[in-house]
Amino acid sequence: MAYIVDLRSDTVTKPTEAMKHAMTNSALGDDVYGEDPTVNALESKIAAILGKQAALFVPSGTMANLIAIMVHCNKRGSEAFVGNLSHIYKYEQGGAAHVAGVLLSTLTNKPDGTFDLQELESRIRGTDVHEPVTNLVTVENTHNVCGGKVLPLKFLDDLSALCKRHNLPIHMDGARLFNACAHLQQEPGRVVRDCDSVSVCFSKGLSAPVGSALVGSYHFIDQARRMRKMLGGGMRQAGVLAAAAIVALDEVVPLLKLDHKRAQILAKVIEGLFLKSFTVDVEGQHSNIVLVRLPPHSALAAEQVVARLAQVCLAETQGDCKTTNDEGVIVKAIYFNSKTLRFTIHREISDEDLWLAIMKITYVFKELDAAAA
Amino acid sequence: MAYIVDLRSDTVTKPTEAMKHAMTNSALGDDVYGEDPTVNALESKIAAILGKQAALFVPSGTMANLIAIMVHCNKRGSEAFVGNLSHIYKYEQGGAAHVAGVLLSTLTNKPDGTFDLQELESRIRGTDVHEPVTNLVTVENTHNVCGGKVLPLKFLDDLSALCKRHNLPIHMDGARLFNACAHLQQEPGRVVRDCDSVSVCFSKGLSAPVGSALVGSYHFIDQARRMRKMLGGGMRQAGVLAAAAIVALDEVVPLLKLDHKRAQILAKVIEGLFLKSFTVDVEGQHSNIVLVRLPPHSALAAEQVVARLAQVCLAETQGDCKTTNDEGVIVKAIYFNSKTLRFTIHREISDEDLWLAIMKITYVFKELDAAAA
Amino acid sequence: MAYIVDLRSDTVTKPTEAMKHAMTNSALGDDVYGEDPTVNALESKIAAILGKQAALFVPSGTMANLIAIMVHCNKRGSEAFVGNLSHIYKYEQGGAAHVAGVLLSTLTNKPDGTFDLQELESRIRGTDVHEPVTNLVTVENTHNVCGGKVLPLKFLDDLSALCKRHNLPIHMDGARLFNACAHLQQEPGRVVRDCDSVSVCFSKGLSAPVGSALVGSYHFIDQARRMRKMLGGGMRQAGVLAAAAIVALDEVVPLLKLDHKRAQILAKVIEGLFLKSFTVDVEGQHSNIVLVRLPPHSALAAEQVVARLAQVCLAETQGDCKTTNDEGVIVKAIYFNSKTLRFTIHREISDEDLWLAIMKITYVFKELDAAAA
Amino acid sequence: MAYIVDLRSDTVTKPTEAMKHAMTNSALGDDVYGEDPTVNALESKIAAILGKQAALFVPSGTMANLIAIMVHCNKRGSEAFVGNLSHIYKYEQGGAAHVAGVLLSTLTNKPDGTFDLQELESRIRGTDVHEPVTNLVTVENTHNVCGGKVLPLKFLDDLSALCKRHNLPIHMDGARLFNACAHLQQEPGRVVRDCDSVSVCFSKGLSAPVGSALVGSYHFIDQARRMRKMLGGGMRQAGVLAAAAIVALDEVVPLLKLDHKRAQILAKVIEGLFLKSFTVDVEGQHSNIVLVRLPPHSALAAEQVVARLAQVCLAETQGDCKTTNDEGVIVKAIYFNSKTLRFTIHREISDEDLWLAIMKITYVFKELDAAAA
Repeated sequence: MAYIVDLRSDTVTKPTEAMKHAMTNSALGDDVYGEDPTVNALESKIAAILGKQAALFVPSGTMANLIAIMVHCNKRGSEAFVGNLSHIYKYEQGGAAHVAGVLLSTLTNKPDGTFDLQELESRIRGTDVHEPVTNLVTVENTHNVCGGKVLPLKFLDDLSALCKRHNLPIHMDGARLFNACAHLQQEPGRVVRDCDSVSVCFSKGLSAPVGSALVGSYHFIDQARRMRKMLGGGMRQAGVLAAAAIVALDEVVPLLKLDHKRAQILAKVIEGLFLKSFTVDVEGQHSNIVLVRLPPHSALAAEQVVARLAQVCLAETQGDCKTTNDEGVIVKAIYFNSKTLRFTIHREISDEDLWLAIMKITYVFKELDAAAA
Repeated sequence: MAYIVDLRSDTVTKPTEAMKHAMTNSALGDDVYGEDPTVNALESKIAAILGKQAALFVPSGTMANLIAIMVHCNKRGSEAFVGNLSHIYKYEQGGAAHVAGVLLSTLTNKPDGTFDLQELESRIRGTDVHEPVTNLVTVENTHNVCGGKVLPLKFLDDLSALCKRHNLPIHMDGARLFNACAHLQQEPGRVVRDCDSVSVCFSKGLSAPVGSALVGSYHFIDQARRMRKMLGGGMRQAGVLAAAAIVALDEVVPLLKLDHKRAQILAKVIEGLFLKSFTVDVEGQHSNIVLVRLPPHSALAAEQVVARLAQVCLAETQGDCKTTNDEGVIVKAIYFNSKTLRFTIHREISDEDLWLAIMKITYVFKELDAAAA
Repeated sequence: MAYIVDLRSDTVTKPTEAMKHAMTNSALGDDVYGEDPTVNALESKIAAILGKQAALFVPSGTMANLIAIMVHCNKRGSEAFVGNLSHIYKYEQGGAAHVAGVLLSTLTNKPDGTFDLQELESRIRGTDVHEPVTNLVTVENTHNVCGGKVLPLKFLDDLSALCKRHNLPIHMDGARLFNACAHLQQEPGRVVRDCDSVSVCFSKGLSAPVGSALVGSYHFIDQARRMRKMLGGGMRQAGVLAAAAIVALDEVVPLLKLDHKRAQILAKVIEGLFLKSFTVDVEGQHSNIVLVRLPPHSALAAEQVVARLAQVCLAETQGDCKTTNDEGVIVKAIYFNSKTLRFTIHREISDEDLWLAIMKITYVFKELDAAAA
Repeated sequence: MAYIVDLRSDTVTKPTEAMKHAMTNSALGDDVYGEDPTVNALESKIAAILGKQAALFVPSGTMANLIAIMVHCNKRGSEAFVGNLSHIYKYEQGGAAHVAGVLLSTLTNKPDGTFDLQELESRIRGTDVHEPVTNLVTVENTHNVCGGKVLPLKFLDDLSALCKRHNLPIHMDGARLFNACAHLQQEPGRVVRDCDSVSVCFSKGLSAPVGSALVGSYHFIDQARRMRKMLGGGMRQAGVLAAAAIVALDEVVPLLKLDHKRAQILAKVIEGLFLKSFTVDVEGQHSNIVLVRLPPHSALAAEQVVARLAQVCLAETQGDCKTTNDEGVIVKAIYFNSKTLRFTIHREISDEDLWLAIMKITYVFKELDAAAA
């Protein structure tokens, strides 16, 4: 038997005791009739937190983003700009193209999750009959594939000025918005101030079991509600899920900064190993995601590293790489590509888990680095 | 204060105590990684019950039906046949057209929820370049708008023979499949035997808070899983919902026949009033839905009847139309159109509730009938 | 060798000498730049004839109808009403669903090509989140599958009143609009007066080789131009086609009444045969299409009749069923279904051709009727 | 009055006398019935020239490309790779996304019209449920926005090897394929050897008035024919257009090398001016398109240059910048963006026209360069 530290994603978090209590003790109703008081309370709460008029509870962040694009790009022949490393483009199947007929045009993401505003401006399409009509710009905050980077407020402000000039709405994929706020030490309302719509997830670092919210103006959410029904995202006594999300906002959001601190520690330890095969960007370590890069021309592949971290060899348990119960340690991780490994810290990772993970990662990284030399 | 008997829909049902217990005491995991044991258990269980290879848990019946059409009509230019009174055509926004580009062609539903098989056969399209390619036939069982009618097994068998000849798959919208089985006193596996895919809802008469399943072959469900992700129907610790659905299958399914008995009683009472303005089809009273028809040329509109049932006048509480606590009674109902009223019986309607509803309905129907004379 | 009278469709007509002259002697330009003077002239001319602001030249009637639906149903989740026997529903692959995500809802066509206005009104959808948004009603005039029937002006006027009440636009598939006008002895402007858009074909009875026009307001045509480009319907020196269409309007439109007269003669002759197996509706014989019905329970199939008309047996040429050159006669026809045969009269059918066709049809019908007895 | 040399596009070319003769003297039929002998002859001819099984005549290159993507990406959730400077992505409205629900993913075009094959390979998506399914790679040859660049055969061969490994089809947008062949001095069959489908335009440098062909296997073209009908691209006596296209293949293709020579001369003259404000890539001058670049930080905009070339000032006609009839000269051009100007040489540009254009361009460029200094 081995002890598992699951750093694959903050989506693996399970509901807290308080959430469980809320799930079975909150008032319920049929949300398709608009009668679930707990869903209504959650929608009001998250809208207020973000400083917007209204919100809609949906089963997933993917659906929140899809609906946002469907509403902003409501007319035939629309184009939406997305980052080339954004979740919307890379990990949502390109659903907005398939399901909603929207041309997703990619802007090259910089390492900090932003993109070049001049490039954006030069690519906005006008009224030429050969071209689609640009109807949306999306940003992601924190930016997952860029390593949990938090978008600078300056970037958001400049983007907003540009978009206002061109009468273009902004949608923020804020799946991990509260992580961004924790890093910036800013209120969510400030961070999303100039966004016309925002999606936030309760089931990632916030630890609720299921659900996301889409937030925007009354008019926007009215249309979004129709789209949710069309996609089959309307749920009945959804209050059982919303109850947990409400608790998440109160109970877990304040804890996110601990995840960030632990991620910092992990990053610094890896940096401190001074290995050729594994590098981290400690300076750009903003939130709960730690990316480890492998050298481009190394024979070592991230797949291999992930596989090795999930194994325990005899030497580990005979040495120090074990728990106090003499169990070996497994660290679960994922990779974005063969040169990029991702660890994600979340509520269920205690200081002890972190310590065990660091021990194991150190052991494996040193082993693989030596072999690669 | 008035006592409310909510007969609008079986979707209003709230989770039972056993469900609540299961929701907070079942093993959870991240279902997007396929690691939620409770979701996996539910999917296995419902597939086994229906005698199919595999199942997929989804947020709603609308999504289950949409995905089924998307998979069966995977190729450009597909046509699916749906009843003109089916839920898919009438109450799902026509999503399969908007979202999936499928031509929904309507077959005229007979009062029993079936349609003419000769008409179907004559309308199957072939390979002519002017025409779409017919790729699916759907049925609904029980049939909501037809009054909870159960499709005769003979019809399903004949339909199956026809579809096999033309190599056409059948999808059953079995939102209330277990009601159909209760009426037929048949195993679900027999009822859906010749269907290539089936959707079933846990959140209607079965009383679970949220969720439906789509059931079919391994290959079908593999593709369905992709579609679910595209639509944003993938959920994380969905086991909290699946747990309730498992309980529903064990605890509530056996009780459905009580709902049917109560619906029978309600229908017979209304028939026994011998009113000109309100008729019911007692013979065709199969399941938990009771339709009341108004005469086509009467000035009376169903909207009006629904509104009146939701009010309490002084005379009611001064007379006998009240609870033992001297509260007036409100009956909530819906209407399909201005000449058709729907009452739906469900687990939360006790014999006493039924009695109060009957008292109120009798009072109001007599009053309105007298006024209309 | 046999002499062929091709009554399959008026689409088989070839350009006249005047058209050929115009095609090679008209000013040309690049219509994608809006610089083809002949296309511009045609668009102005047809708009003026129909009493509308603007027009757009497109490669086919199918594209004209598709674009019309795309523009009227520009928003996500739209529903368009079409006749269940309309060309749009039956013979355009349901393209508006596949390509444009529009729910095509069918109204049952009456034998005269109209549909029930009360049914239409009762089926217009509102704002309920379960339903699509009704955004268009289409009519077809003359109505092909109904046998070239001309819609009564009264019907169009009543439809218009209804649609105005519900703020719904009307699109007329006027592929054979000029045939309707010839029958009604009304100006096109009167017939399409209350339609928001109209498609007309130059390549059917009008004999131009290729092309149709979509006609409507400036704003509508602006949007249509974008849709044409998207679909790939923008053509360069399209003046070569437009030139023929201009001639068609001047030269061939006045001749359409001759086609109608010849169709009348054909219908009356068939009626006069008093055969059990073949019936025509002489009274409803409005334009250039003659439908022959076979008895529903006869063993005789339309396929078979069409095949027999395309053959010449020895007895025919040995008897009188031949040309003055002793050639046998072949009549080409098509069938809509196994009980409905269609003959279509057009400019290339001279009185002599008609006479030969009648002789042949009489011969074959009598032969088959005798065999069926 | 001024003499106009129209270098905006080779699409402005008008039919030759031989084309006009063919258009009015070729056998016609109804191509929707497959009976137009001239269309059939063109389809056979172009398929044979390209060494493929079959071809389909369509109204435009845009439709040819759209249909190709629709057929290759026939299944829900498909992704097609296109160059970020390709005509498909930039100038066809993104129709494949809007109309066909295909995710168009862009590869960064290099200045020579190719893209990085390693990047392509790393971005091919597999079977992960978060991702679309990569189903197509497209190339453009010659590459318009890259300045009429001809793709190296080596690139096509390497791309083909890569695509075969991944079982991915290749579509070539060969709107100007014959220009590529003229430059490479290779047979078309060699150039498109490894492409599964190819579109070619008859209405650009080939001077036919209207039309393109889509070329591929029998099976591919069968499906393409269905798509053409769906989009409304089926035309009746399309032989009038096909006749001109046949002449174009015989008469104009051999002349394309003259266009290339004249474009070379124009490019060299501009280079020889040694101006700071206007540069050309003489070495990369492959075909009939000449791009002139303006310095990125200059105040001069391409819009302004195009406008100036379209004006005649007094000094021009008083000096030498005029025709032998003392008329001023206007050169029409277009710009891709504010720093890139395009001249396109075509059949209607004689040596004298070229000379006049060069005179005018020299005059204007010098004038503007002096002003910018």
